[in-house]
Amino acid sequence: MDFTIRAASLEDCKDIARMIRELAEFERVEEHVKVTQRDLEQDGFSKNPFFHGIIAEVPEQQKTKEGHTKIGYALYFYSYSSWKGRSVYMEDLYVMPEFRGKGIGKALMSKVAQLGLAAGCNQLNFTVLDWNKSSLDFYLSQGCFDVTAAMGYHCMRCEGEALEHLAQP
Amino acid sequence: MDFTIRAASLEDCKDIARMIRELAEFERVEEHVKVTQRDLEQDGFSKNPFFHGIIAEVPEQQKTKEGHTKIGYALYFYSYSSWKGRSVYMEDLYVMPEFRGKGIGKALMSKVAQLGLAAGCNQLNFTVLDWNKSSLDFYLSQGCFDVTAAMGYHCMRCEGEALEHLAQP
Repeated sequence: MDFTIRAASLEDCKDIARMIRELAEFERVEEHVKVTQRDLEQDGFSKNPFFHGIIAEVPEQQKTKEGHTKIGYALYFYSYSSWKGRSVYMEDLYVMPEFRGKGIGKALMSKVAQLGLAAGCNQLNFTVLDWNKSSLDFYLSQGCFDVTAAMGYHCMRCEGEALEHLAQP
Repeated sequence: MDFTIRAASLEDCKDIARMIRELAEFERVEEHVKVTQRDLEQDGFSKNPFFHGIIAEVPEQQKTKEGHTKIGYALYFYSYSSWKGRSVYMEDLYVMPEFRGKGIGKALMSKVAQLGLAAGCNQLNFTVLDWNKSSLDFYLSQGCFDVTAAMGYHCMRCEGEALEHLAQP
């Protein structure tokens, strides 16, 4: 299958927003998605962007029945490990179901790794849901390891009223 | 106890590097620490920094027996949630053992939360080691929740030869 992998631009935000919703539906958490196309445009494509994106695209003749040619994406941002230094974090990796098993997810992730290495990063970090066995198997097959299982790391979060309260001096 | 909380500057990197090693010793992973003072200076205090820092400092008359007045730190960077948008990630939070229980860790974390909210962030994310019960209890008491326990998120990592291999097209 022909496909191209390229940096996302402002014009891709509509499709990224659509695919974020599709991924959340797969992860059974669609009610958690608050991000809109406009948020993505503002947060990813202005000065000091909060994230960067990669798009997987197929030729017009392979478009979906709904007419989509942008059929996968990755979001990433640069981060830091106080042990290892410069790192890159992959926030999302998604390929539409009908285009899976063709190397597109691997190509998206490979691009994030390339860009990370080029920026001097020593690590690529991301999360996976423990019930998403096919994704976990894919990542393990790429030489990734489960930091939570190996070292006992738990992801923690503060948001909403708790965050507002925490911020009070 | 008197203490001040302020943004870290280039001149703090020596003490941050020292405290990163102290924290790693506590976490029993000191052999993993590759970051040097010079890395911190380059990566945190040049154009497009990979992280930001907060320092906790005590007055000269309360210095440690080794002569340290910089006795705690937090490292953070901005990140992104494809569900909730702008986020802040706290990479490290550390207070030297003899200064614990005085609200300094809370003050450092509060500052990260304040800065995150001011930048439009909706979430503060971080990790905790599952055996570090006192830290976990502190975070839970602040209204944080364990995303790994609640939603099954596992932290994943690719580094070294696996990362080089992944980056090959």
